[in-house]
Formats: sequence, structure tokens, C-alpha cells
Amino acid sequence: MTDTAPYSTALLTDHYELTMLQASLADGTAQRRSVFELFARRLPDGRRYGVVAGVNRLLDALERFRFDEQTIAFLADRGVVDQATRDWLADYRFTGDISGYADGEIFFPGSPVLVVESSFAEAVLLETVFLSILNHDSAVASAASRMTWWAGGRPCIEMGSRRTHEEAAVASALAAYIAGFTATSNLEAARRYGIPSTGTAAHSFTLLHDRERDAFRSQVDALGKGTTLLVDTYDVAEAVRTAIELTGPDLGAVRLDSGDLPSLAGQVRELLDSLGATKTRIIVTSDLDEFQIAALAPAPVDGYGVGTSLVTGSGYPTCGFVYKLVAREDESGALVPVAKKSPDKISIGGRKWALRRRSAAGVAEIELIGVGEQPVDDGDDRVLLKPLVEAGKIIGRTTPAESQAFHQKVRDELPRSASQLSRGEPAIPTEYEGDYDARNPFHPRSHT
Amino acid sequence: MTDTAPYSTALLTDHYELTMLQASLADGTAQRRSVFELFARRLPDGRRYGVVAGVNRLLDALERFRFDEQTIAFLADRGVVDQATRDWLADYRFTGDISGYADGEIFFPGSPVLVVESSFAEAVLLETVFLSILNHDSAVASAASRMTWWAGGRPCIEMGSRRTHEEAAVASALAAYIAGFTATSNLEAARRYGIPSTGTAAHSFTLLHDRERDAFRSQVDALGKGTTLLVDTYDVAEAVRTAIELTGPDLGAVRLDSGDLPSLAGQVRELLDSLGATKTRIIVTSDLDEFQIAALAPAPVDGYGVGTSLVTGSGYPTCGFVYKLVAREDESGALVPVAKKSPDKISIGGRKWALRRRSAAGVAEIELIGVGEQPVDDGDDRVLLKPLVEAGKIIGRTTPAESQAFHQKVRDELPRSASQLSRGEPAIPTEYEGDYDARNPFHPRSHT
Repeated sequence: MTDTAPYSTALLTDHYELTMLQASLADGTAQRRSVFELFARRLPDGRRYGVVAGVNRLLDALERFRFDEQTIAFLADRGVVDQATRDWLADYRFTGDISGYADGEIFFPGSPVLVVESSFAEAVLLETVFLSILNHDSAVASAASRMTWWAGGRPCIEMGSRRTHEEAAVASALAAYIAGFTATSNLEAARRYGIPSTGTAAHSFTLLHDRERDAFRSQVDALGKGTTLLVDTYDVAEAVRTAIELTGPDLGAVRLDSGDLPSLAGQVRELLDSLGATKTRIIVTSDLDEFQIAALAPAPVDGYGVGTSLVTGSGYPTCGFVYKLVAREDESGALVPVAKKSPDKISIGGRKWALRRRSAAGVAEIELIGVGEQPVDDGDDRVLLKPLVEAGKIIGRTTPAESQAFHQKVRDELPRSASQLSRGEPAIPTEYEGDYDARNPFHPRSHT
Repeated sequence: MTDTAPYSTALLTDHYELTMLQASLADGTAQRRSVFELFARRLPDGRRYGVVAGVNRLLDALERFRFDEQTIAFLADRGVVDQATRDWLADYRFTGDISGYADGEIFFPGSPVLVVESSFAEAVLLETVFLSILNHDSAVASAASRMTWWAGGRPCIEMGSRRTHEEAAVASALAAYIAGFTATSNLEAARRYGIPSTGTAAHSFTLLHDRERDAFRSQVDALGKGTTLLVDTYDVAEAVRTAIELTGPDLGAVRLDSGDLPSLAGQVRELLDSLGATKTRIIVTSDLDEFQIAALAPAPVDGYGVGTSLVTGSGYPTCGFVYKLVAREDESGALVPVAKKSPDKISIGGRKWALRRRSAAGVAEIELIGVGEQPVDDGDDRVLLKPLVEAGKIIGRTTPAESQAFHQKVRDELPRSASQLSRGEPAIPTEYEGDYDARNPFHPRSHT
């Protein structure tokens, strides 16, 4: 699971991280042991749960976070930081610890999705690239999971590359796969992550030919009768008849990319059946989102291709994750909790633990978060933070297939209400063990 | 203007483009001369105009669109296409012509933003990567332009990297710059495109220190009195007093990242003035968008930092550009217009020209589009399509600074109503020269 181009990620960074580094190196606070936490203050309006994705990409980015000669030369040339800081950066290696929610894990408001512990200097530099990756990928996975939930057993294919940045497209394909999509149109995602890729033809292929029949014959000759023919360039019924004339009952599928899909799918199903093509599947791909997928549940549809709404997070293209200093050494060397005091952006200081408390039947009930000693697992609690990096060594990688299976497993723990598409409260409440009520922006009641 | 890693862009491509290639190579239609057009059927709901960005990135991507050995091996390994197709791909070079709207140009519904003419085979492969780039970058530029328009002379700084994919962040910084932003927080954008980068400190820097005063002193020591101090970690008024105690009246700026900004900015201005810091500027950065920027116009604010809403297109993270075959050779070798017939996605066939018709006073009045012979420029019309690629040679590159100046110039042509933030019709109508009314999805009246 490596990129085509394993280039340095060191400049995918906000300017102020380097100026903070310079100032803290000069005053000696750069070496203070620090804990940064990545979390979302809330879910997108009315969503019931969020899905973590991007953790493995983040570990890849961490591995490539190196200030090489060319990068240092740029910083010198622009005068971004002084010589002492550039010397420190040239030797930069992250030597701290990171724990976090795994790819595919569910998150709620306040979930400590990532906990980074190291010197201030080592951790502060990672803020932007970590946030970029998790904010993007988790936004896509959170939308994707709602789609696969409502698609039931019907396969969902990711085909949104054209509607998002060309590299975000590759990341989106992976995030969608983690959340249960079965394939992608994106070839780079297939190459980089091993995700199955799929696709047959666009309208342009039909328009290129003098007759629709010529296009269909050409496609079947090239790709076999098991292919998927796009039947809505001119007249759908005529195209379906032409298709079955050419292939007989062995045509793999027809694709509908426009029109009133619920009724059109029914008409096409009837027509295919009347022509003996009872096994030929119907794939629909016209600007779908989770709401339309849910609406198509009763229709004779065999698969969904999802584009725009998937790669743009179905209305919420970013997660609102922030990366906050929650504890750091003081003058005496003790680790003390810290938090910003401004009334509209309250944070809770201290290094967190996080458990998903489940009923005896295994249904998730509470996102339980605390500071200090983590309670002993009594069998009903699931520990959410997993070791990802220890003393600079990356230990937490998972494969896309593992992440997909993990997501299925942890989503199955959620109460059934989590699948609701109507706007409402998170599927389970976030609660804080201990005395946080006064500063708790998430849920007023404390855990009892 | 080159990427850190000039790797191949050939697989930033949908699977179906390669299967269409295979089928068309086998049946001989691959060599048919074809015209593809990239356009948006409509603007995002209620927007008055759109801004093109990504054209230079697209030309970079075209230059790197090569099927190298590793790529061909992947296609063979996965059985994506057959040996004949892989052989053809190994030699792939785009040898056709491309014209398009320049970076910074304004577009409207139906504007032929990009026109690609070559064999079907050469052009069909570019669909996904071209759409990805222009859909993303133009969405960001379209939002950015509304922000800079309403910011008036006050500088806007792009700081959204953390809320979008890490590479989309770099592209967003460029798109924002084209639309009039003056700087970015993103260091890679500074390195890659030469955009000014800026930044000083986050809340974590204040929290790292035992006292706010220590953090401010450290920052001023490192970055000078001209720096920007973040004053809302604890108590704003106290922080401002501490800051001016340390720097005297020479403090460059204070930054407000939370609170009720219009009233807070007024209070801080008064306080700064009362302390003699009449030149110290006030920068605000709290989840701004074009509406909040407009609302802050009367407040004593000296600059805006914009993040989330910018990089997510302020509600519209993609432009809805499509890439459609509009003409191709027939059996006799004549170029014939083609278009899909489905009722809900009408397209107009034929290779287009496009002019912005202006009044005698130089105000834009009509987006005039036609097929065939372009009318002779009578001085009031501005030709919109510029040559970008001729016979495979890239000729249309512009620098970010040129694109920014061009955007300013063409935006100044728009009627004043184009700046309206309320939802409404495009600032000027799109009209078709000739007999297109029956199929014209954009504006019912024809040009007279």
C-alpha cells in the first residue's frame, strides 16, 4: 500500500507550525512532553454516527514526513524559519507515540480519534497533514456507510473521481471501500490499494458509432456478453431490445444513467424478463445519494454506482476534526491538562481513554471517555484507542479488506436507530467519566 | 510551476475509458476525429457566475499522462485491457488540439470551458483527470471570488488546508490566489506555485507556555514586533493589554479566532487605539464565508483568514462540469454533431465558439455561444476560447500572477449585480447563435 510517488509530505503543513517551532526551540518549550488530541466537537447536522477513514494514509504520510535538502532550501530561500530551526528540521523524525481509532471504526462527538504524544516540537508539525487526511477521508466514509447500509446486500460502486480533486478521488475510493463499497471506477485506487476496479462504457462510446447497435456489438465483442451495456443514450426500450438481440439471455447487466429510476427500473426489468434475460442485472448510476438509494429499495435494482454525493460527503465534505493540545509538561516536568477558555469553542484537557460500552446483547450504548486510569474491561466495554505508533515505529497498519470487515463488525454493534436518515441525535451519547459536566459541550448528563 | 513528484497521471482515470478504448481500437472507430466539450449545464443554485481555475494544472497533468512500464504491467496483471490496447497505450501521446477558457475567466451555464479535438482514442482517455481538476479548482475559485469581491480592498488569506484532502489543499491555495486571495497558510503551495505563505501561531503555542505573556514574548522574540498575536485563548482584553505592554505600538496585528466578531473587533479596535497601537491591524479567522465577510464590512477589520468554506466551495464543492462528445467523423469522414437524447440531460452537438458580448461601456451583456463560423469581433465581443494545446504542444500556460490579474480584469466587466449574494439568475444570460431554441436547456430566448 504505497503511493506512486513516495515524495516528502513535510510541506503539506501550515506556515505557522514552523514559526511556532522556531519560537519554542528558542525558548526551550519545544521539548516539553505534549499530548495532542484529534476530535470532532459535533457530527454534521443530524447525522447519527461518523466513520473513521484515513488512518493508514496518515501513517504513510508520517513515514514520508521528512525535510529533505530541497525542502530545507525552500525554507531558507523564503526565510520561513531561521538556521537553527532548519537544522532541527533536517534531522526530523517522529519518535513519539500515537494511538487512535482504527480505519472503519465509528466515532461520535468528542471521540478522541487520534492521540499524539511526544515533544511539542515533534507533534505540532503534524497538525495540518493529519487533519487534512482524516477530515477528508472520514467525511467520505461517513457518507459511504449510510449508502451501503441502505443498499443492503446490493453492491455499491464508487464512481465519483471526476467530481473531486484527482488525488482526493483516489483517497475517496479507499474510504468508500472501507465503508462497504465493493469496487471503484478509479484505476489508481485499484493499483495503489488493490481495490477492485470496474467500468465498461460511457455515452460517448455509443455516440461515436453511427448506430447504437454498432456500439453494443463492438462492446460485446471486446468485453464479452457478461458486460454492462449503457441503454439510455437514445430510447431505453429500443436499446434493451437491441442488446438482448445481440447477446441473448447472457447479457451481464444494463446501466441506467438518467430518468425516473424507480419506474424505469421496473419497466426495464419487465422487458428483460419478457425477452428471456431474467438473469441480466440492472445497474443505476444517476446522481444517487443515500436518500435515493433508500427510495430505490423496493425497485428491481441490482447495484448502485455513486459519484458526486459520495466524494463530497453527501453535503458534508469535511468532518470538523480539530487537533488540540490537551496536556503538556509544566516547569516542574509534570504533565498538566490544558484547554482554551473561549466560550464558543470549549475543549476538555487531559489525555483521554475511550470505551464503547455495550449491553449484554452486544448493542452499543455509550461512548465513554475519561482522563486518567482506564477502567478494567468487564467484557461489555470495547477499547477504542489502538496503538498505531510506538516510539516512532509504525505498528498499527491494517489492509483495506481488514478495515472493511472491521467497519461491518462495529457498525453491526450500533442500535438500529443509527441507520435513520432523518436528522437527529447521535445514535449513542458521549459521556465523560469524572467531573467534566461544567465544561462538557457534548452531553450534559454525566455517566452514572 | 512543477509538482514535487512529476509522476504519471495516466491512472487518474476511470476504468471505462480504457475498455472503450479497447473496443474502439478493435472496431476501427478509435481513429475517428472527435470533439469533446467540457461545460456545466448550470451554476450552483442561485450563483451569479463561476470562475475557471485548474487550466494550468490540467496542462501539467496532460504532460505527465504517460503509460510507463509499471502502469502497463498493472493493466496486464489485472486484465483491464488486452495486449493490443496496452501496446497502443505504451506509445500514448496527445497529438490533438485543446482550446479553453483561461484560469481566472468567468463562466456561465453552457460555456464551452474546454474544447478537445483529436482522435476519439486520444481524447476519451483524458475525461476523468480533466474533469477532476477543473471541477475541483473551479469550485474553490468560484467561492473565493465572492469572498474577495466582498472583502473589497482587505486582504484574504487562504487557510483551509486542514479541512480538505492534503493535495486538494495545495490546489485550493492556487485556485484561491487566482480569485484574488493574497496569501496562503500552505507551504507546499508556496513552494510549488510561488504563492506568498503566511502564519504565526495557534492556540497550542499559548497553551504550551505557563503564562500567555511567556508565549507572546517568545513569539515576538522569534518573529519580531511586526508579528500577529493570537489573543483569544483566555481573555481577549487582557491578552491585548499584555501584547501591547510587550511590543508597544509596533505590534503588527492581533488575530481573533472566536466570538461575536463584529462587536469584538470594535472593542479590540477601541482598546488598541486607547493603548496607542493605532496601526496594529485586526485579523479575523473564525469559520468565515462570503456572507460573514460581507457582514463584517462595517467592522474595523483589516484582513480575513478563510478556511473550511473556501476549500469546500462554500456549499458547492464541485462544479458539475461534464465532458461530452459533441462531434465526430462519420463513415464518410465528415465531422457531424452528436448529442445524447435523454430528456433530462440535453446537450447541444457541434464544436462551439464563445464570445462575451459587451456594451459600448464595456459591461458584459451576453455569453454568446454558437457552432460553426465565429462572428468577426466588432470590438465589443471578447473571444473566450484561447489556444492551450496545438498538435500536442502545450502553448497556453499562464503564471498564477497573470491569472489573478486576468480574473480581476474580467470580473470588472461584469454588471454590478454579479456581486449579489442572494440567490438568483446568472449575471448575464447564455444565448445561442442559430437554431438551438428547441434543444436549449439554458435560456429560452434566442439571440437577436
